[in-house]
Amino acid sequence: MALIPRLDIVSLDALELDPSTKGLPYDAPRLTVGDVGSQGWSLLAGDLPLPVAVIRQDVLAANSAWMSAFTAENNLVIAPHGKTTMSPHLFDLQIADGAWAITAATLQQVGVCLRFGVKRVLLANQPIGRPAIDACFSALHTEGGFELYCLADSLDGVAFLAEGARRNPPPEGNPLRILVEMGFIGGRTGVRTRKGAIELARAIAAAPGLELAGFECFEGMLPTPETADGLIDDVAAMALLAMEEGLFATSARIIISAGGSAFFDRVVERFDLVSFPYPVLRVLRSGCYLTHDSIAYAAAFKRIVEETTLQLPEGGLEPALEVWAMVQSRPEGGRTMLTMGKRDVSHDAGLPVPLRWYRPDGSMTAPAELSPGHSVVALNDQHCHMITPIDSPLQAGDMVGFGISHPCTTFDKWSLLMLVDEDYRVTGGLKTFF
Amino acid sequence: MALIPRLDIVSLDALELDPSTKGLPYDAPRLTVGDVGSQGWSLLAGDLPLPVAVIRQDVLAANSAWMSAFTAENNLVIAPHGKTTMSPHLFDLQIADGAWAITAATLQQVGVCLRFGVKRVLLANQPIGRPAIDACFSALHTEGGFELYCLADSLDGVAFLAEGARRNPPPEGNPLRILVEMGFIGGRTGVRTRKGAIELARAIAAAPGLELAGFECFEGMLPTPETADGLIDDVAAMALLAMEEGLFATSARIIISAGGSAFFDRVVERFDLVSFPYPVLRVLRSGCYLTHDSIAYAAAFKRIVEETTLQLPEGGLEPALEVWAMVQSRPEGGRTMLTMGKRDVSHDAGLPVPLRWYRPDGSMTAPAELSPGHSVVALNDQHCHMITPIDSPLQAGDMVGFGISHPCTTFDKWSLLMLVDEDYRVTGGLKTFF
Repeated sequence: MALIPRLDIVSLDALELDPSTKGLPYDAPRLTVGDVGSQGWSLLAGDLPLPVAVIRQDVLAANSAWMSAFTAENNLVIAPHGKTTMSPHLFDLQIADGAWAITAATLQQVGVCLRFGVKRVLLANQPIGRPAIDACFSALHTEGGFELYCLADSLDGVAFLAEGARRNPPPEGNPLRILVEMGFIGGRTGVRTRKGAIELARAIAAAPGLELAGFECFEGMLPTPETADGLIDDVAAMALLAMEEGLFATSARIIISAGGSAFFDRVVERFDLVSFPYPVLRVLRSGCYLTHDSIAYAAAFKRIVEETTLQLPEGGLEPALEVWAMVQSRPEGGRTMLTMGKRDVSHDAGLPVPLRWYRPDGSMTAPAELSPGHSVVALNDQHCHMITPIDSPLQAGDMVGFGISHPCTTFDKWSLLMLVDEDYRVTGGLKTFF
Repeated sequence: MALIPRLDIVSLDALELDPSTKGLPYDAPRLTVGDVGSQGWSLLAGDLPLPVAVIRQDVLAANSAWMSAFTAENNLVIAPHGKTTMSPHLFDLQIADGAWAITAATLQQVGVCLRFGVKRVLLANQPIGRPAIDACFSALHTEGGFELYCLADSLDGVAFLAEGARRNPPPEGNPLRILVEMGFIGGRTGVRTRKGAIELARAIAAAPGLELAGFECFEGMLPTPETADGLIDDVAAMALLAMEEGLFATSARIIISAGGSAFFDRVVERFDLVSFPYPVLRVLRSGCYLTHDSIAYAAAFKRIVEETTLQLPEGGLEPALEVWAMVQSRPEGGRTMLTMGKRDVSHDAGLPVPLRWYRPDGSMTAPAELSPGHSVVALNDQHCHMITPIDSPLQAGDMVGFGISHPCTTFDKWSLLMLVDEDYRVTGGLKTFF
């Protein structure tokens, strides 16, 4: 079972966009992904139908550079979580800025990475089910080379992977590399005890075709940085224990990994406390840093800046992703309805925040700030309910740009996002694969 | 500005699927939408990677037939809300079962209808912004004929539409047909007063290229059937008032319309109270009846069955849409993690409910029920947290089928859903366009 046996498209830019793609002008010609940036479209000129999701390319580039500096200064590599954006163009940017691998959550996502030329993927889940497991082993045979790391969190799971290796043995020198996933009581996946973890590590080390590559956790489910510390410590302690027990193959690259986008400072601080007898690769897997956001991760980053003992690079993360909608009507003075809904913007970690507005009739030279009295109170499937001060300047036909919370659940609502310059002129199209 | 000037694909079955489409087997050959049903795939044989969204075709057909009978028996026509599914194959089914039009929420959705041959669309929103308005008038010139109804809820909005008609006059005999949208204080769009509504009706009637077609509301935002009654009554009362004032063109088909999927019995009951001096078309716009659901609309339908004074057709609506996921691990006896998350299933009106399970190792002949002690407590982006009885039969690699709440926000997470028979064999692919 080949993971992607049918792929002859390797250039994303050459991929033709479906003409019904949300966000494309209604009168757009047939075009490829690569054509989007050369159409001369401008958000503020009214060329784009709203709602539309835009990414400010200067902010994006600065965020990517900031994380590159942060990881370099702290003896980390990054395998940014690709599930956030599922945009191969953004994977390319991250790799160009030094990403060691791309992280994925599912085999469909691994397939997208493979399709568009990513050479090393960390699948941050235990592959389960014969289609997924067979696809993993198949991917190891990719011409030109492909390294795949995945997780294990149960002996049953390891047994399934070992069966997969028997069915479809990996090529010499390219085993399925496995990190034991550490979890916590009441948490998500991941083995709950150190005893369970060492048993898993032994089972992996003993299985032909599998290689113990290290230990990892996802601490982002925990409520506070303090509670995350213990889980991160488990990862380092287990790696040490497995070294002492000689469970790593001599050829193995030994990895310790953690890191959502909320507590990545703590990952460094805790890992720094441990010294290892063998070289260890410290892999951070944050995904949301790239576009950042205006609410949840904005607050998380503020906490990092205020609390961390680390020296942070100049500048900092800024929100790059905005969704723009149009005022449909103001049926009551204090209530404005806009053309944006649950299908267009994340709503699972805070409702979008109005940032600025623009009237596309030639009367304004640039978007203007909106006063704090404007706030979103509800989203329906295709509508946004915004409370507005009675003297708000907004009227039907005005455009409003919103900051979002939780990039993952905004990206997945768009198969095409627009990359824009500082004047909101479209410079490219970011195709996503959800 | 043509709405869809670039469409040469008119056959959905001939459309090639992107190889990265979620839900497709990893080793699927390149295929078109029309090929999906002839691959011999079976959910229970383990051919599909999980998660996958499936629609039981027998239940779907029965729901469609039930609504067809309900509307026919109650002097209604249905313009089912296409935004729910955005699946042109399902539009075809609805039209074959007598749908008078397809309802849409956005111009992108109108474009999808037009692309795949729908001849009459009710856009249940005020078009706003030059791209959207120009696209409306452009669509009226579609070769072979295309009737477009839309809403208006402010004088500014009508002025924009009138300008659009001046820029791009509709062809003789095919004006932009407009329903005045009635709203309520604290609600969504829609004019708040009868005085405001009659002013709008006059403005529409006076504008060349626009035609007053009637009045409508969306009562589904109201908390109870009793509160919905007043809004439905407004619609009928306004139509009567506009008739008395002579605002309808003699050629106009006069429409009164309402109807989400929760209170559609009340629409009939309230409209039945009014008699009109001219023929009136009563248009229901429910969308969720087609797949129905296992939670929110299941409860709403139960209320209808218990309370309505109407004679209902035999049978009733049943849930047709399920999302299947795989047990990834049971890291604690009472907690099971599955391969399904916010990106795969609706979570805005209740978390999914586990219905049945299956072990794809040949030991079971059919899915078995799950005891009530199994319940979903949380979803992350790509994970499902399920509480399980300690003696639950579930283990890693087992499949679990979930019922969903709110079809609209499950459909939009899949660009391809699988149509299945009673044994979960794939009989077709439903491509969606969100």
